[in-house]
Amino acid sequence: MSGGTSLTIVLAAGEGIRMRSSLPKVLHPVANQSLLAHVLMASPKGEGASLAVVVGPDHRAVIEEARRYRPDVETFVQHDRKGTAHAVLAAREAMARGADDLIIAFGDTPLISSATFDRLRSALKQGASLAVLGFEAADPTGYGRLLVENGRLIAIREQADASAAERAVTLCNAGIMAFDGRKALSIIEKIGNANSKGEYYLTDAVTIVRDLGLEAVVIKTSEDEVRGINTKAQLAEAEQVMQAKLRKAALDAGVTLIAPETVYLAADTTFGNDVTIEPFVVIGPGVSIADGAVVHSFSHIVQASIGKNASIGPYARLRPGTSLGEGAKIGNFVETKAATLEAGVKINHLSYVGDAHVGANANIGAGTITCNYDGFSKHKTEIGSGAFVGTNSSLVAPVKIGKGAYIGSGSVITRDVPDDAMAVERNQQTNREGGAKRYREIKTRAKTQK
Amino acid sequence: MSGGTSLTIVLAAGEGIRMRSSLPKVLHPVANQSLLAHVLMASPKGEGASLAVVVGPDHRAVIEEARRYRPDVETFVQHDRKGTAHAVLAAREAMARGADDLIIAFGDTPLISSATFDRLRSALKQGASLAVLGFEAADPTGYGRLLVENGRLIAIREQADASAAERAVTLCNAGIMAFDGRKALSIIEKIGNANSKGEYYLTDAVTIVRDLGLEAVVIKTSEDEVRGINTKAQLAEAEQVMQAKLRKAALDAGVTLIAPETVYLAADTTFGNDVTIEPFVVIGPGVSIADGAVVHSFSHIVQASIGKNASIGPYARLRPGTSLGEGAKIGNFVETKAATLEAGVKINHLSYVGDAHVGANANIGAGTITCNYDGFSKHKTEIGSGAFVGTNSSLVAPVKIGKGAYIGSGSVITRDVPDDAMAVERNQQTNREGGAKRYREIKTRAKTQK
Amino acid sequence: MSGGTSLTIVLAAGEGIRMRSSLPKVLHPVANQSLLAHVLMASPKGEGASLAVVVGPDHRAVIEEARRYRPDVETFVQHDRKGTAHAVLAAREAMARGADDLIIAFGDTPLISSATFDRLRSALKQGASLAVLGFEAADPTGYGRLLVENGRLIAIREQADASAAERAVTLCNAGIMAFDGRKALSIIEKIGNANSKGEYYLTDAVTIVRDLGLEAVVIKTSEDEVRGINTKAQLAEAEQVMQAKLRKAALDAGVTLIAPETVYLAADTTFGNDVTIEPFVVIGPGVSIADGAVVHSFSHIVQASIGKNASIGPYARLRPGTSLGEGAKIGNFVETKAATLEAGVKINHLSYVGDAHVGANANIGAGTITCNYDGFSKHKTEIGSGAFVGTNSSLVAPVKIGKGAYIGSGSVITRDVPDDAMAVERNQQTNREGGAKRYREIKTRAKTQK
Repeated sequence: MSGGTSLTIVLAAGEGIRMRSSLPKVLHPVANQSLLAHVLMASPKGEGASLAVVVGPDHRAVIEEARRYRPDVETFVQHDRKGTAHAVLAAREAMARGADDLIIAFGDTPLISSATFDRLRSALKQGASLAVLGFEAADPTGYGRLLVENGRLIAIREQADASAAERAVTLCNAGIMAFDGRKALSIIEKIGNANSKGEYYLTDAVTIVRDLGLEAVVIKTSEDEVRGINTKAQLAEAEQVMQAKLRKAALDAGVTLIAPETVYLAADTTFGNDVTIEPFVVIGPGVSIADGAVVHSFSHIVQASIGKNASIGPYARLRPGTSLGEGAKIGNFVETKAATLEAGVKINHLSYVGDAHVGANANIGAGTITCNYDGFSKHKTEIGSGAFVGTNSSLVAPVKIGKGAYIGSGSVITRDVPDDAMAVERNQQTNREGGAKRYREIKTRAKTQK
Repeated sequence: MSGGTSLTIVLAAGEGIRMRSSLPKVLHPVANQSLLAHVLMASPKGEGASLAVVVGPDHRAVIEEARRYRPDVETFVQHDRKGTAHAVLAAREAMARGADDLIIAFGDTPLISSATFDRLRSALKQGASLAVLGFEAADPTGYGRLLVENGRLIAIREQADASAAERAVTLCNAGIMAFDGRKALSIIEKIGNANSKGEYYLTDAVTIVRDLGLEAVVIKTSEDEVRGINTKAQLAEAEQVMQAKLRKAALDAGVTLIAPETVYLAADTTFGNDVTIEPFVVIGPGVSIADGAVVHSFSHIVQASIGKNASIGPYARLRPGTSLGEGAKIGNFVETKAATLEAGVKINHLSYVGDAHVGANANIGAGTITCNYDGFSKHKTEIGSGAFVGTNSSLVAPVKIGKGAYIGSGSVITRDVPDDAMAVERNQQTNREGGAKRYREIKTRAKTQK
Repeated sequence: MSGGTSLTIVLAAGEGIRMRSSLPKVLHPVANQSLLAHVLMASPKGEGASLAVVVGPDHRAVIEEARRYRPDVETFVQHDRKGTAHAVLAAREAMARGADDLIIAFGDTPLISSATFDRLRSALKQGASLAVLGFEAADPTGYGRLLVENGRLIAIREQADASAAERAVTLCNAGIMAFDGRKALSIIEKIGNANSKGEYYLTDAVTIVRDLGLEAVVIKTSEDEVRGINTKAQLAEAEQVMQAKLRKAALDAGVTLIAPETVYLAADTTFGNDVTIEPFVVIGPGVSIADGAVVHSFSHIVQASIGKNASIGPYARLRPGTSLGEGAKIGNFVETKAATLEAGVKINHLSYVGDAHVGANANIGAGTITCNYDGFSKHKTEIGSGAFVGTNSSLVAPVKIGKGAYIGSGSVITRDVPDDAMAVERNQQTNREGGAKRYREIKTRAKTQK
C-alpha cells in the first residue's frame, strides 16, 4: 500500500496471566516466531510508515524483540493499566508528530495480515475518520457488538450493556482500528472513564466520531484472523491455523506432502520443484530445499540449505549452518552442524559431522564422529573430495583428511592425512581360541557360587 | 466423598471376543494403564470403602492386575455367563457383609470418574434406593432407554421391547448404578430370568425397586464418560479421549505444547512452570518435568525425572530410572537408562549411558557407550564431576572415571581412571602415502577382471 | 466376477499441470503406489479380462508402470487432446477386437474398488447397454448432473448447460462407465464435437444410447471412491482416505494401534494376532508382522518380515531384506538392511547391521557396525549363534564371527573369528596421573593469552 504516512501503535503491555508463564505474553512463539513479531511483520512498513509499541513495565525483553524485527520502532511504557485508550495515549508523543493514518494493533493477534491493515487504511482514504475491524462471530457472547446503520458504524456495544436485540447481532469488534491521523489524538483524548471500572476504552471513539459528525465504518474479516492469544490452548490453536496455511501454500506450490498434518513448517521455508516430504518432519526457520530433494520421515531441519536431489533421513538432524550439495545423502541417525557437504557426499548412518567441510563425493562411514570440541574450543575438520572414512572413526579436530584419502575403520585420526594416503590407527587383532568358552565357564561359575 | 461405608463390585468377566486378542478384555491398556486399572482408580477408596472384582474363569491375570492397584480387593469368579445380575451375585459373600452403599461398575469403561461415583452415592443419601447412571445418546439405537416420570426412574426398556414412543427417548442406560446397601441383596435376588435368553438382568432392579414403593433415580453424565470398550477401534477412541483430556490439563497448567495433538502423555505426568514440549513426543508413566525444561521433537521418555531447565532431544530416549539434574542436556540419538546425571551434564550425541552415575558438568562425547552388560550381568559406571569423555569411547563396566578426568577419543576404558588423570587406549596413527590410491587401483582392477 | 470377457480402457494421458511436477500425474503415489497402479489393481483381471491404457505423448514412464503391474497391458498414445471420447478411441484397435464388456476407467481415481467395477458389469448383464457411475455430491457445483427418469439415465448435463432445476440435482457423474462391448465402438464413434470447445465428450454417449432405444442406468457409489486427483492437496487427501481404510482394517483384524492416526501403513502390510503398534510408526510396502510382535514409537519399516513376539524400536529402522526371527529385539537407533536375524537375536542400541546373517541368540552390543562397503563392493558378515559382540565394534566384511565367539569392546575385526574364540583388537590403556589437570591448565592459559 503506497501513499500517505502512517503510524502503527501496537499494544503489547498485557501481562498474560492466563498463559501461566514468566515470559511476557507477546513473546510466546507461533510458527517459531513471537506473537509480537508476527504482528510487526504484518504492520505497515517502508517509507512513511512509523511504528510504536506500548509495553508493560519490566518488559525489556519485549522492547528488544520489537527492535530485532523493526529497528526503527519507538517504544513506550504503560505504567498503570487504565484501559486501551490509556495504553494508546502512552504513545502520545508519537501521535503528536502527526501521520496521515493511525493504526491501532494488538501484539497478541499473530494471524493478522498486512492486507487487512491495507483495507483499513483504504477506508480512511475513502472518507472515513475511523475504520474498525469486525468479524462475524460463530458465538458472539462476550464480544463487543458492532452496531451499523446505513453502512455506518454508530456504536460498539459491550455485552453487559447490550439489549436483547443488540445481543442478537453477530458482527463483533476485533479491537484493531484505523483513525484519520490528523484527528486521532483529539478524538482519543476525548474518551472518558465514566464506567464501572473507571477505565478509558478505545471503543468509545466510535460515538465521539459520530458526535463530531464524522464517519466511522466497519471493515470485515474472518474470526480466525483476529484471534487473540490468552492461553496456551489458544497459542496451540493459532499454531494449528498457521501450520495449516503453510502446508496449504506448500501443496499449492507443488510440494508433495504425503501427510501434511504431520509436517511442521516455518514461515520462511522455501521449496524447489518436485520436493517430497514424508510424514513426521519438523522444519524450523531458515531452511531452503532445492528441486527434487526428498526429506524422509522423522527428520528435523533448522537453518540449513538442501541441494538439488539431495536425500535426507529418515532420522536425520540438520542443525544450523548445514549446507548440502547436489545429490548429497544424509541417512539415519546422522547429525550435522555448521557443515558444508559438497555434491554427492554420503553420510548414511550414525554419525556426527560438525564444524566441517566435506569435499564432493566423499563417503563418510557409519559411526564417524568429528571430535570438534576439546572441552575448551570448537575446531574444524576438513575432508577432501573423494575421501573414504571408515566406520567408527574419530576425526580429532583440527584435522585435514586429504582428497582421495582412505581412513581405516575404527581409527582415531589426530594428524592430517595427505591426499590419496591411507591412514589407520589400530592394533593387531588377537583371536584366543576357546577364550569365549573359558570366559563363559568362569562367569557361570561365579554366578552360581553367589 | 466421606461418610458411610461402600462396596464397589466391578464386573470384569467379559471375554472380549471382539478385541480379537488372547489378552482378557479389561487388561488392554489406555494411556498406559489397563481398562480395569482406570476403573479401580476411579472407584471409591479409603476408609470404609471395600472392593470386589468379578472375573471370568482362567482370568488369573485380571486378579493380579486388580491386586496391583488395590491390594485390598476381593475377587470372585463367575463360572457361567447368565447375565449381569448373575455376575453381581458371584460377589454375594461381599454383599452379605453389608455396606451403606453398593456400587456396580464395569471393568471396560475406563473413562469413568470418581466424581460420577460420588454423584451416584449422593443420590442415595438423598433418599433414593437405586441411582442409575444415564446419558443422552447421540444415537440411542441399541441402548436401554431410561423411562422417567415425575423425576423418578420407572423402568429401563431394552431396544427390542420398546414402543415407538419409547424408542424416541434419548436418555440411555450406562449400566453403572448404586443401591442402598441395606436393600441391595434382597432386590437383586428378586431378579428373574423370564426372558428370551433366560438370563438375569440387573436392569430389572428398577421395576423391583418401584414395586417395593422405593425410589429409583437417574444421574446423568456425558456419553464419552461411559463408553464401553469392545473393539480395538473403541480402544483407540478411548485413548484419543484420554489424551485430549491430558493435553488440555497440561495446557491449562501452562505447559507449552506446540502441537498438542502430537504429544502423548501419561495420566501421572507432572510439569513445572514454563515447560515446553515440541511436536512428536511420547511420554510414558512415571515422568516428572521440572520448571523451564524443554523436550524437543521425537523424544521418548518413561519413568524419568527431568530437572529444571534441562534440555531433552530431539531424538532422546530416556528409559526408566533416568534422573537429570538442573540444566542437564541430552541430545540426539542418546539413550539413558538407570542413570543419574547430575546438574549440567551434557550427553549431546549418539550415546548410550546405562547403569551409571555421572557427576555434575561432566561432558560425555558423541559415540560414548557404557558397556554395562558382559553377557551375564549388568555393571555400573561412575563418572566423576567435570570429567570429559572423548568421542567413540567404550567404558567397560564396572569402572570409575575420576573427577576431572579426561578420556581420549576412541578409548576402551577397562580400568578405573584416577581423578584428574588423562586416560587413553590407542595406537599410533600410520599414514601410508599413496596407499589409498594403490588400494583403489587394486580394487578397480579386481572389479574389471571379474 | 466371472463370466464374459471384458476390456478395460484406463485413460491416463492427462498432463496434470496442477500437480506442478515433472512427473506424469498418474505416477504420483498414494500409499506407496502410483495412482495408476491402484486403478490397475482394481480393474478386472484374470481370464477373459484385457486391459488398455491410453497415455500422453512422451509418457514412456507411464507405460512402464502399467507393464509392471499388468504385463499383459496394451498401451496407446493419445497425440492430441480432443476430449474423453477421443482418448478412448485411441484404443480403437483393442475395442475392435470385441469383448462382452467395455469399461472406461481413469488413471487418477486411486480409490476405486474392484467391487464397483463388478457392479457396473452386473448392470450390463441385467440388460443395460451403458452403466454410468454416479455419486451424491456434497456440493454438486461444477459436476455433470445425472438426469434420471423412471430408473433410466436419460442425460448427463454439464453445469454450464443445466437449468436451475437440473442444477438442484445432486447425483453427479463420476466419469467411469461400462458399455455393452458389442455396441460400444459404434456408440462412441457416433459422438460428435459440436460444442464450444470442439471436443468429443464421452458423456454424450448417454443420449446416443437413449436415441438408439437402448437402456442407460446409473450405479451409485460414494463421493470418496471416485475422487480424482488433480493437485498435491487432493493427493494428500486421497492418502488420508486410504490410510483411514488401512488403519480401520488393521483395528478390525485385532491389531492394537494406540494412536491409529499416527501410523502409516501400506496396502500389503500383514499382521498376526496380538500385534501392537505404538504412536508414530511408518510402515512401507512388503512388511509382515507376526503374532505378538510390538512395534514401538518412531520406527520405520520397509520390506521386512518380523517374527513372533519380536520387539522393534523405538527408533528402529528396518530396511529392505530384513528378516527377524521369533523374539528378536531391535532397539533404538538401530538400522538393519539385507539382514537375517535369527530367533532371540538382540541388537539393542546404536548399530548398523547390513548384508549380514546373525545366528540365534547372538547379542550385538551398542555401537556395532558391519563395515559392508569398502568403497567398491558390498560384502557379507556372518555372526554365529550365541556370539557376543562388544560395544563399538567394527566388523569389516567379508568376515565370519564363529558360534559362541566373544568380541571385545572397541575392536576392529578384520579376520574371521573361530567358534568359541575371544577376539580383541585393542591397545593397553594408559592412565597419565594429573594429565587432565595439566591439559586444562595449558588450554586455559592458551585461551587467556589470546
